[in-house]
Amino acid sequence: MEVSEFFVKLLAIILSAKLFAEVFARLRMPSVLGEVTAGIVIGPSLFGFIQPDATFHLLAEIGILLLLFEVGLETDVGRIIKVGVQSTLVALTGVVVPAVSGFYIAYSWFDLPLIPSLFIGGTVVATSIGITVRVLADLKKQNTVISQIVLGAAVLDDIIGVVILAVLYDYAVKGAVSIADTVRIVVFISVFLLVAPVIAKLFVPTMAKLSETSRTKGMIPTLIISMILGLAVISHKVGAPEILGSFAAGIALARRFFLPLGSAIEHYSHDIAKKIEDSMTPIIDLFVPVFFVMVGVSLNFRVIDATSGAFWWFAGTLTVAAILSKLASGVWVTGGWNCKLSTGMAMVPRGEVGLIFAEVGRRNGIFDDSVYAVVVFVVAVTTLLAPLALKSLMKDLPEECSI
Amino acid sequence: MEVSEFFVKLLAIILSAKLFAEVFARLRMPSVLGEVTAGIVIGPSLFGFIQPDATFHLLAEIGILLLLFEVGLETDVGRIIKVGVQSTLVALTGVVVPAVSGFYIAYSWFDLPLIPSLFIGGTVVATSIGITVRVLADLKKQNTVISQIVLGAAVLDDIIGVVILAVLYDYAVKGAVSIADTVRIVVFISVFLLVAPVIAKLFVPTMAKLSETSRTKGMIPTLIISMILGLAVISHKVGAPEILGSFAAGIALARRFFLPLGSAIEHYSHDIAKKIEDSMTPIIDLFVPVFFVMVGVSLNFRVIDATSGAFWWFAGTLTVAAILSKLASGVWVTGGWNCKLSTGMAMVPRGEVGLIFAEVGRRNGIFDDSVYAVVVFVVAVTTLLAPLALKSLMKDLPEECSI
Repeated sequence: MEVSEFFVKLLAIILSAKLFAEVFARLRMPSVLGEVTAGIVIGPSLFGFIQPDATFHLLAEIGILLLLFEVGLETDVGRIIKVGVQSTLVALTGVVVPAVSGFYIAYSWFDLPLIPSLFIGGTVVATSIGITVRVLADLKKQNTVISQIVLGAAVLDDIIGVVILAVLYDYAVKGAVSIADTVRIVVFISVFLLVAPVIAKLFVPTMAKLSETSRTKGMIPTLIISMILGLAVISHKVGAPEILGSFAAGIALARRFFLPLGSAIEHYSHDIAKKIEDSMTPIIDLFVPVFFVMVGVSLNFRVIDATSGAFWWFAGTLTVAAILSKLASGVWVTGGWNCKLSTGMAMVPRGEVGLIFAEVGRRNGIFDDSVYAVVVFVVAVTTLLAPLALKSLMKDLPEECSI
Repeated sequence: MEVSEFFVKLLAIILSAKLFAEVFARLRMPSVLGEVTAGIVIGPSLFGFIQPDATFHLLAEIGILLLLFEVGLETDVGRIIKVGVQSTLVALTGVVVPAVSGFYIAYSWFDLPLIPSLFIGGTVVATSIGITVRVLADLKKQNTVISQIVLGAAVLDDIIGVVILAVLYDYAVKGAVSIADTVRIVVFISVFLLVAPVIAKLFVPTMAKLSETSRTKGMIPTLIISMILGLAVISHKVGAPEILGSFAAGIALARRFFLPLGSAIEHYSHDIAKKIEDSMTPIIDLFVPVFFVMVGVSLNFRVIDATSGAFWWFAGTLTVAAILSKLASGVWVTGGWNCKLSTGMAMVPRGEVGLIFAEVGRRNGIFDDSVYAVVVFVVAVTTLLAPLALKSLMKDLPEECSI
């Protein structure tokens, strides 16, 4: 790509994201939906000005890292642990029910072969953690009990989704699954998630000292971005999604994160907490929308053959199943139906992980174009519909799940 | 490039830049030299961990845009105009003397054909505006008279360099030069440089209003980056280097920029000047080092055949000429020899433009590998040597050129 072409396209992404986000916000809709819509408009679905290109894909990945970092920064680990049992039940239900129903529909009702059916099951598993946390933030509900449950569940969900993808991929390619490998990945990820924030936290005093004594500009953003990238890379090495690394970095730097080591560490971190926030906010605000625009760009509606009755029948059934099966996961939440439904609805959006599944499936010849189009449709509808439904569901939550 | 490979390499770039910059600063050397050295160390010259890859090249381009934006932001147009005559004389001398001596050495002493000799002349013309402004800032001399003269001259120099490249390229490819095209480019660039800041300035009230009434986060950095990218693209369209667009954007938003329209505009801009600075500083501090690291990565010393006597003879002669011919440009500056020498030395670093010339030359078969290596050598020595020389020259400047 030529430099000036890159600049024009980056400009289009940044400006259209802001324009649509602002319009959606003024129409009282979640602004994240505006950003995805911007991607649909400038992407191959409509104007085709931006293609799912490697460079913007990489910039989008920085965006989602930074979003999860920001979420981690505002996360109160204590509160997440308090609702841990509910989170785990929501996550497990939200994995098993969609996977089984997706597989069953593809295999029994639409007569797909075994492996594509398993992949369909995998595709509808993972909640889009990005869309979900942004919608909750857009609705200013990120501090409710429901949000804590959903955040915990979405993180678990993401891990399980990645493990399932690894297992299914092995099965599809090698015809066998290694239980030992799977267990090892799960153990690695668990250890990483427990240990990473603690180790990262231990660096905070050094970071504070470096930023005080530095002779060059920009020490804080450099070190924070380095920590985010470093943990993302380690996370990938242990077999977990990269975003868990940046989430861990955020948790480590959260004001509410306490270590048994106590006051010495807190003394420093309070000192630089504001500096970190001030210097990271503009960077986050710049990159995060690139991610959501690129989600919209990836949703290429042109792959859909709208004249095909078979397409609508399969896509419609699978979409309904994808929604209902995630709604079911909310049943474990204490509180009224509103609380349960809101939780379930927050788990509905599939996004990047579903699209990655679909891409892997297509590239390896597991999905043909028509099945790929069905998956894109499911991802698109759940991504675009859930935020709107969530908004009206969460308007008047009972106190038991909204504190 | 895989996502995790991208993250690892980005981490290497950011961390090595900061490490070397910090070490150089503590050794009382300009930190920008540390960043270039970081690129030499992790690039193909030494460890080969980073190659001059397209994605990082594009990120580096954002870095140089942001650097020129920052320079523009701190530029007092009035002071630049006041030293305009001296700037113009420095720029013209700094173009003519190096071009003629470079051409003459290649053509008469080393018997190169006409077109490669002309290209050699073009290569040694353009001062690296990036290196120069960063060195002056590192030395905390960016507000001296000399800096104003050098900044004006470097900008003019850059424009002339681009025009020469366009003309030489046409001559090399088509065998003829269109005077009309050349004049048109020069007129376009001049009009752009005069009009762009004024028009950009007119957007400031709108920007202030949008940021006040926005329902979404990050309106200021989004709009500023959009303005920078937009003006860079327009700048490219009129035939000027992209960095002039971002420089114009910076000038437009500078606190010291005044329009005849007066108070209404100033009222707003004072209001948001601090917001702009706060939100742009971390983004600038993050991206700018990527540019200098990539300059270091582009300086591939492995293309040099150090055992060749012919190489050293040609490279040495050309380097001495490249340095002396730019030093001569300082003769127009009022003040003692120190003032004149400092100005000339500030014009010595060749960098990105020289390398672009060399690349264009190589890709079009105008330079063979040995001539290309000579050019890389000249760029490297002038880039690495001038900042150090400048530091000792500028230590005790007389008052007449240091206010």
